[in-house]
Amino acid sequence: MERDLSALDAFLEEAGVDGFLIDADGDDSDQHYLSGFSAPDPFHTLYDGEVHLLVSSLEYGRAKTESRAASVERHVDYELPALVEEHGRLEGGRRVLADFLAERGVESVAVPSRFPVATADGLRDHGIDVQSPDTPPIGRGGTNVIEGIRATKTDEEVEHVRTAQKANEAAMAAAEDLIAAATVEEGHLHHDGDPLTSERVKEEIEVTLLRHGCALDETIVACGADAADPHDRGSGPLAADEPIIVDIFPRDKATKYHADMTRTFLKGEPSNEIRRWYDLTAEAKRAALDVVEPGATGAAVHDAVCEVYEDAGEPTLRSDETTETGFIHNTGHGVGLDVHEQPLVGPGGDELEPGHIITIEPGLYDPAVGGVRIEDIVVVTEDGYENLTDNPETLVV
Amino acid sequence: MERDLSALDAFLEEAGVDGFLIDADGDDSDQHYLSGFSAPDPFHTLYDGEVHLLVSSLEYGRAKTESRAASVERHVDYELPALVEEHGRLEGGRRVLADFLAERGVESVAVPSRFPVATADGLRDHGIDVQSPDTPPIGRGGTNVIEGIRATKTDEEVEHVRTAQKANEAAMAAAEDLIAAATVEEGHLHHDGDPLTSERVKEEIEVTLLRHGCALDETIVACGADAADPHDRGSGPLAADEPIIVDIFPRDKATKYHADMTRTFLKGEPSNEIRRWYDLTAEAKRAALDVVEPGATGAAVHDAVCEVYEDAGEPTLRSDETTETGFIHNTGHGVGLDVHEQPLVGPGGDELEPGHIITIEPGLYDPAVGGVRIEDIVVVTEDGYENLTDNPETLVV
Repeated sequence: MERDLSALDAFLEEAGVDGFLIDADGDDSDQHYLSGFSAPDPFHTLYDGEVHLLVSSLEYGRAKTESRAASVERHVDYELPALVEEHGRLEGGRRVLADFLAERGVESVAVPSRFPVATADGLRDHGIDVQSPDTPPIGRGGTNVIEGIRATKTDEEVEHVRTAQKANEAAMAAAEDLIAAATVEEGHLHHDGDPLTSERVKEEIEVTLLRHGCALDETIVACGADAADPHDRGSGPLAADEPIIVDIFPRDKATKYHADMTRTFLKGEPSNEIRRWYDLTAEAKRAALDVVEPGATGAAVHDAVCEVYEDAGEPTLRSDETTETGFIHNTGHGVGLDVHEQPLVGPGGDELEPGHIITIEPGLYDPAVGGVRIEDIVVVTEDGYENLTDNPETLVV
Repeated sequence: MERDLSALDAFLEEAGVDGFLIDADGDDSDQHYLSGFSAPDPFHTLYDGEVHLLVSSLEYGRAKTESRAASVERHVDYELPALVEEHGRLEGGRRVLADFLAERGVESVAVPSRFPVATADGLRDHGIDVQSPDTPPIGRGGTNVIEGIRATKTDEEVEHVRTAQKANEAAMAAAEDLIAAATVEEGHLHHDGDPLTSERVKEEIEVTLLRHGCALDETIVACGADAADPHDRGSGPLAADEPIIVDIFPRDKATKYHADMTRTFLKGEPSNEIRRWYDLTAEAKRAALDVVEPGATGAAVHDAVCEVYEDAGEPTLRSDETTETGFIHNTGHGVGLDVHEQPLVGPGGDELEPGHIITIEPGLYDPAVGGVRIEDIVVVTEDGYENLTDNPETLVV
């Protein structure tokens, strides 16, 4: 796939505005995607059919060589020092930005969800029409147009995710090895004479990822009741005979693209219930993957998981929207510059398209039993999907 | 020091508004500071003399136990599902937020610099006066009131920085050991038979920090011409007989507070020029520290560094604002939830106060020579300062 901004052109035409403006630093995924540039301080990117950057002199050289902009300009090109001298920093900065837009005949802009109100109001004072996006102030917010475009990955982006996933697999293997090598004393895992904790396994995962050029802020190693809450990161000693959910979502430091994978391990003897849950979850994952192809909806993939669980008598949010046990989350999500992004693989999920990278992560949860989750990451292809995950599914280690 | 929000009360009175509103996730330092809470998705914090949180049901339990809010409420307490059913997600969410403010009689709010325009416009549509902050759209922006309050650390915050600095010192020692143990072959450093690179030293630093509970996105290990650019992170093989700048600024993963320290190492024989630069920089650091006490300005501390360099004939931005060699940055900055925060230790820097945590980091740079920088982190006390840095200054290792 090639990068395709035609949806942005259509959006601007539909909105009746001259351009799309971003005011954010390079950690913002929309900014990074549109500009192709990453700087620690906020900078401005205008799209008016082409990409134009306005940056500080400090970033100018790097922006010219690294960004994908058709043009890069500096604040001094718009006389920032003189304008600040005459009008102060607030008004001087606003005039530079207004002049940058005027230079391209841009009198109206659409902006992303979290565009800063101070910049918006400053531009409005200069007669620029800044259209506020229709983003609800509560919840994860609506999808803006750039997020929609980002859902479809180019070949290069697929390679970035594939590289991050290789690092992820090394980290998962390190976690599995540590759990497998543990001894059991009084119902808990031990390593080198000390209790083996969630924290110790996370450290092993993080060090392995670092050695592979990846970073992560958080990872999940959760056992027992912790594992029964899909949002719990896990802590403390790991128990024998109980499932341990290991969910790793690293970011490649060079490319900023993510991977995502979950495995569930158990040291000792699983109960019949856990064994059944594990086999059901592996079956649910296969059932979901069988549906993945262009034109299938994220909703249909999710339904395939619900079918398997419901047929086995397990509650799902589809069968009981108030249930707090069973399958209590979506089947998956897109992965890219953000670890959670479009498309949605759950109720209301739209049609999958070639180039979408999604997770498939069914799971079962009950505080009285624990939790089981298995997650692969796949790319949708012209005729189905390619599984980017190359990791065995082993419960008992 | 105790946490003191009286400056926020004064700001609200001066601005003539009923409250201060933040819409951000827990990675935002102002949000984390005011709410005492960290959640991955954006949530709302209102200050009206007390701190009030509006969060999702998912975060409610954790917010009640972990935040420093006087009250925590959920979206469902304001009938979010029914309002979304009737008005859609956009308008439903806006009404919940407007009702949350109305419940406390808040009809006007001030907001931080990067408050999202979509939320601001939504509240304005509901008759709330949202005062746009006076933040220039270019540059690091003005200081908002919360950033100003954050500059003065409580005893607990000082301990958080001290803990991060201990991890930093372990990482710096690991870097120094690696460079000291290197062999020299054809003018470059080698380790275990391979060229010793900037990347290899960074990996050692990052792994050491991880083992001490810290994370970092970036670190500087820069040699030769790389070291002459204070913004260059460094890359590639490290050379013998040239200064290697190691600048580490980790974040404690548990507390989110940072530390910051720089040392310059050299394997082999320094030139007379580098030796002189190093001694001058150590002297400049001592001269700056001699000035640090409550009531001294950040500008005066910076001047002390400039005096030392200028007396020795080295250019500074004070003596020549166009110089690209010599002392070409500020003397230091505040450190806390952000690695760069208030107060400023440079031209225009205001009076230091007890509880300020600042860096003192003089340095000299010239692409033809390389770079030298030495950086300590100190806390301003009632009668001077305490240096939180416990690391030797050694050039040749």
